[in-house]
Amino acid sequence: MEILDVIRNRYSVRTYQERPVEEEKLQRVLEAARLAPSARNMQEARFVVVTEPSLRSALVEAANGQKFVGQAPVVIACCSVNTDYVMRCGQRAHPIDVAIAIDHMTLQAAAEGLGTCWIGSFYPDKVRPLLGIPDTVEVVELLALGYPAGEPPLSKSRLPMKAIAARNHWEQALQDSEKGA
Amino acid sequence: MEILDVIRNRYSVRTYQERPVEEEKLQRVLEAARLAPSARNMQEARFVVVTEPSLRSALVEAANGQKFVGQAPVVIACCSVNTDYVMRCGQRAHPIDVAIAIDHMTLQAAAEGLGTCWIGSFYPDKVRPLLGIPDTVEVVELLALGYPAGEPPLSKSRLPMKAIAARNHWEQALQDSEKGA
Repeated sequence: MEILDVIRNRYSVRTYQERPVEEEKLQRVLEAARLAPSARNMQEARFVVVTEPSLRSALVEAANGQKFVGQAPVVIACCSVNTDYVMRCGQRAHPIDVAIAIDHMTLQAAAEGLGTCWIGSFYPDKVRPLLGIPDTVEVVELLALGYPAGEPPLSKSRLPMKAIAARNHWEQALQDSEKGA
Repeated sequence: MEILDVIRNRYSVRTYQERPVEEEKLQRVLEAARLAPSARNMQEARFVVVTEPSLRSALVEAANGQKFVGQAPVVIACCSVNTDYVMRCGQRAHPIDVAIAIDHMTLQAAAEGLGTCWIGSFYPDKVRPLLGIPDTVEVVELLALGYPAGEPPLSKSRLPMKAIAARNHWEQALQDSEKGA
């Protein structure tokens, strides 16, 4: 499958089958994260791969009650061991670097027939003790992973190209859209 | 080509051919960004696609003197029109959302035979006036895009899997590596 088709087909999966994820598929998903680039090749992203049912159940509360977090056969706590580096442009590097690794995982997962969901609604202070994550380590996102139950949405709701991209110069159209402004 | 192969083959390209990027390839790269997910589907990412030679030359200084920024036939200023939303986990959404869109572009580009380089070393206050980007819009990253000159590196320098991923519980090995700690 072409990458653009995988990107097109990927969606946020919030209902999962009980069926476990095959170890070789999980390893390829993690390999996609391992190969991700990072600022100055810092490689600060770390992953706690949660498959133990009691831990996944406990993560539901840490994820603000989102039940699918306990239904997904795998939940990956996506962390950073370095939160200090600020790029010249003013951005902290680690949220971007961890996001690249997660995006790689979501696409590899989709290519494997697996679903994922980025989870930003959680309490890091509740996740850390459950998984033994040190206070010095930042939990950036959780990622649910497993076989989707139910059907994909019929289409993606996305702005048209002219609302998001301009050539050589900013255009008013980039600010006129309802979304994002 | 499988996604994992594209991920494996992608590298940061800092020397480019003069050859322009075909419009249909550029449009597919941008389409990969347009389809990217974002927190609450905010779709706050915006792109100024710079192909005009004098503007690309001017971007060299804005990018702290990195000459390849002027050599790449395309430089994309990757921006956000919404910088307010903080997720429950404490992360600002927009750097992560823009990173997802950029990662999509780097992979689609690699699948098209094109090279890219994430550029975080630049001065947003010098980029904005060149491209007419309003002060309210954050320039998160620049992305160089074009046909690579020269050869890819022989291998990627990456930590082994056991140094970046653990099962169900944090492990000391995740902090012992030289990189990132």
